[in-house]
Amino acid sequence: MEVYHLYSGGKDSSLAAYILRKIGYEVKLVTINFGVLDSWKYAKETAEILGFPHEVVFLDREILEKAADMCIKDGHPTNAIQFIHEKALEEVAKLEGVERISDGTRRDDRVPLLDQRKTRSLEDRFNVQYIRPLLGLGYKTIRELTERLFIVEVKESEKLEKSDYEVELRHLLRERGIDPLTIFPKKHLQSRVIGWKKEKAHL
Amino acid sequence: MEVYHLYSGGKDSSLAAYILRKIGYEVKLVTINFGVLDSWKYAKETAEILGFPHEVVFLDREILEKAADMCIKDGHPTNAIQFIHEKALEEVAKLEGVERISDGTRRDDRVPLLDQRKTRSLEDRFNVQYIRPLLGLGYKTIRELTERLFIVEVKESEKLEKSDYEVELRHLLRERGIDPLTIFPKKHLQSRVIGWKKEKAHL
Repeated sequence: MEVYHLYSGGKDSSLAAYILRKIGYEVKLVTINFGVLDSWKYAKETAEILGFPHEVVFLDREILEKAADMCIKDGHPTNAIQFIHEKALEEVAKLEGVERISDGTRRDDRVPLLDQRKTRSLEDRFNVQYIRPLLGLGYKTIRELTERLFIVEVKESEKLEKSDYEVELRHLLRERGIDPLTIFPKKHLQSRVIGWKKEKAHL
Repeated sequence: MEVYHLYSGGKDSSLAAYILRKIGYEVKLVTINFGVLDSWKYAKETAEILGFPHEVVFLDREILEKAADMCIKDGHPTNAIQFIHEKALEEVAKLEGVERISDGTRRDDRVPLLDQRKTRSLEDRFNVQYIRPLLGLGYKTIRELTERLFIVEVKESEKLEKSDYEVELRHLLRERGIDPLTIFPKKHLQSRVIGWKKEKAHL
């Protein structure tokens, strides 16, 4: 039972990967990149530390350009992040041999999050199972589990070496002469997993 | 990390219990009973086979009587099952020392299922975490996992030795001279877990 799991190196997608492996899946981590920065390398590093196979899926830069347009028009990144995530899921779902896709989206997230209609549409259009191990978990539960499992580095979004969509999106905004801080929340702490708390916690 | 898991002996609540244990929880199975039938014993039997501690929580018969009224008024059991499940969650959440509760409710279920507002209200009112391991899993994923894990017995609802709310609810309707088949779907197959498919699959 192979599953292709969208992976940023963050706490949520790491926890979801851990759960999937624990319940019997062969988990392949996939990091999305638009060729703007080599920010995928942080997720690859974490994946290696955690002991998961990892690959990068490069998506069309046009998707990121369109997301940047949306950010600028809206004045906030909500719709842009949702748009990128839906594209990412679709692109991974359509890869040769993919039967199951997954991510670390959670109950208490506003975005990215697929509603019931979009979830079923994704599964039906690409004939895949879409698995979200954290969807039934609240923020307290996720915090308790991640604190137990992972060594985590917390920094402000602008400084953290991460591999999520935001990193390239912020860069593209800067390239266009727009300060990302006018779009993204100012004090936005992000986290990155840098190891297991207990040796062999993953076995 | 102790969690009190609502348990019927069926595939869904068994799979959810399996996932919880796999990711590090100390899982206590709890079967709800209204003192009308001793139907809890089937869940206890399955719990013992699967190797989980199990207890029965007896709820006030009035809850079941009210659910029977709802069934009769509606002509279908949807609201009644939802009502019983919400009461069950609340009663377990308010037990001494309970910090986490869980169940086997799934993404594709209509009932019982708590929406976002009710979920947060439950967590806030009783200061518990409410964990639903199957909420992010579709029916195909759940079927694949349960087929891999469990030996399952499938029978019509009227015949199966089960421990879910339906069993006592159907009995109460019969006591009131009402044929449950006028309320519940006629060809309603139910399943009960009777063992692990592979020895030690649970370890």
